[in-house]
Amino acid sequence: MTKTEIQLIRSLEDKRAREETGLFVAEGEKLVRELLVSDFSVRRVFHTEGDFGPGFSPKEMERASRMKTPTDVLALVDIPRHTFDPGTLKTRLTLALDGVQNPGNMGTIIRLADWFGIRDVMCSADSADCWSPKVVQATMGSITRVAVHYGDPEDMIVKVGGPVYGTFLEGESIYDASLTPTGIVVLGSEGRGISSSVERLVTRKLFIPPFPQGSTGSESLNVAVAAAIVCSEFRHHR
Amino acid sequence: MTKTEIQLIRSLEDKRAREETGLFVAEGEKLVRELLVSDFSVRRVFHTEGDFGPGFSPKEMERASRMKTPTDVLALVDIPRHTFDPGTLKTRLTLALDGVQNPGNMGTIIRLADWFGIRDVMCSADSADCWSPKVVQATMGSITRVAVHYGDPEDMIVKVGGPVYGTFLEGESIYDASLTPTGIVVLGSEGRGISSSVERLVTRKLFIPPFPQGSTGSESLNVAVAAAIVCSEFRHHR
Repeated sequence: MTKTEIQLIRSLEDKRAREETGLFVAEGEKLVRELLVSDFSVRRVFHTEGDFGPGFSPKEMERASRMKTPTDVLALVDIPRHTFDPGTLKTRLTLALDGVQNPGNMGTIIRLADWFGIRDVMCSADSADCWSPKVVQATMGSITRVAVHYGDPEDMIVKVGGPVYGTFLEGESIYDASLTPTGIVVLGSEGRGISSSVERLVTRKLFIPPFPQGSTGSESLNVAVAAAIVCSEFRHHR
Repeated sequence: MTKTEIQLIRSLEDKRAREETGLFVAEGEKLVRELLVSDFSVRRVFHTEGDFGPGFSPKEMERASRMKTPTDVLALVDIPRHTFDPGTLKTRLTLALDGVQNPGNMGTIIRLADWFGIRDVMCSADSADCWSPKVVQATMGSITRVAVHYGDPEDMIVKVGGPVYGTFLEGESIYDASLTPTGIVVLGSEGRGISSSVERLVTRKLFIPPFPQGSTGSESLNVAVAAAIVCSEFRHHR
């Protein structure tokens, strides 16, 4: 592996470098195999000696890898340009992330969207970048099956239309609410929740009540945990 | 703040130092206030000038803090010795973590246990330490209300008894299962799931089906996400 290649790979931890090159890094045999059989354009695969044929030394892989235990396979992949088609999204259940900051939360939400058959996630521009190595890793391959659309959340929500759900302390219990098969579920940022400009577009306020109901103590749930319960309810208790 | 104090605080990022001193570090005004009104023994509070009275300079606080944006308040607190009382746990719903490694997942699970009125979490000795600064932070204060018991998971599970639930690919759909008000829910590690020795003690295998049912693609859910859905079902759909 040349020094330039190692530098390029490491530079892609940075969002600006990803935007300039249009590339992201995928690590791990399972993920790289999934990418190779997907519509993604895999530019280059770096690997140690093994199933993929003659390869690089573990030392070289270690220099390129950002993981504590460097994996055997690493790929440079084109960042896909997903088409944002409001007409199609209108017929589906979609998530809208309004400023989710933590890469682990972002990856976990993409992974659970995949599990619950949600094919599109809209994200405000200030949300974590789904092509960062941490997020790609946390999705456990789901990033190949879920289309993430970045843009102005209000604009995207208005274009898709339909019922817009969000969780708020003053919302109706999600366990009693009637939930539609299509619609948008808004999830707010870890620190400040859903922004007031997006809140104005929410037509159905929901709440995940604590147990026992009305108990005090914990004030909120982690955003990925809330997303999990909301998706589970929409898909299995409608 | 003396150099020795700063060194002590920073050393407590390390599990061994926490075990030797019996102390953990809590950062953030909200958390420290919760600790001060709890049964926890707060040994020392370090703070900047403000509500807590005359204090240290932000520079000093920054040297002691492990956070990107150092908070204004930091406390040294005694690690509590929770009594493991199988007789009491038998009458409750309890979680058992079998090797959960990621501090963020550990903290998120403690936080959601609190939300769902689960007062005890049993953890195998190889699980992430709940007194590490990352976990304490991720619990968002719930660590003051949930008792975490470390030990041999098989031993603890056998002592508590009752129905033992766990999620497995071959389990019954959790949405169709009849769930009891008391019992133990086992959650496995991120990498290898529930260990075979603990699996032998599971009396009720559950499964969170994907949507649509039988769809392929994503192979699993993040452990905190699975915990969230399981707790939500036990508490609100029994």
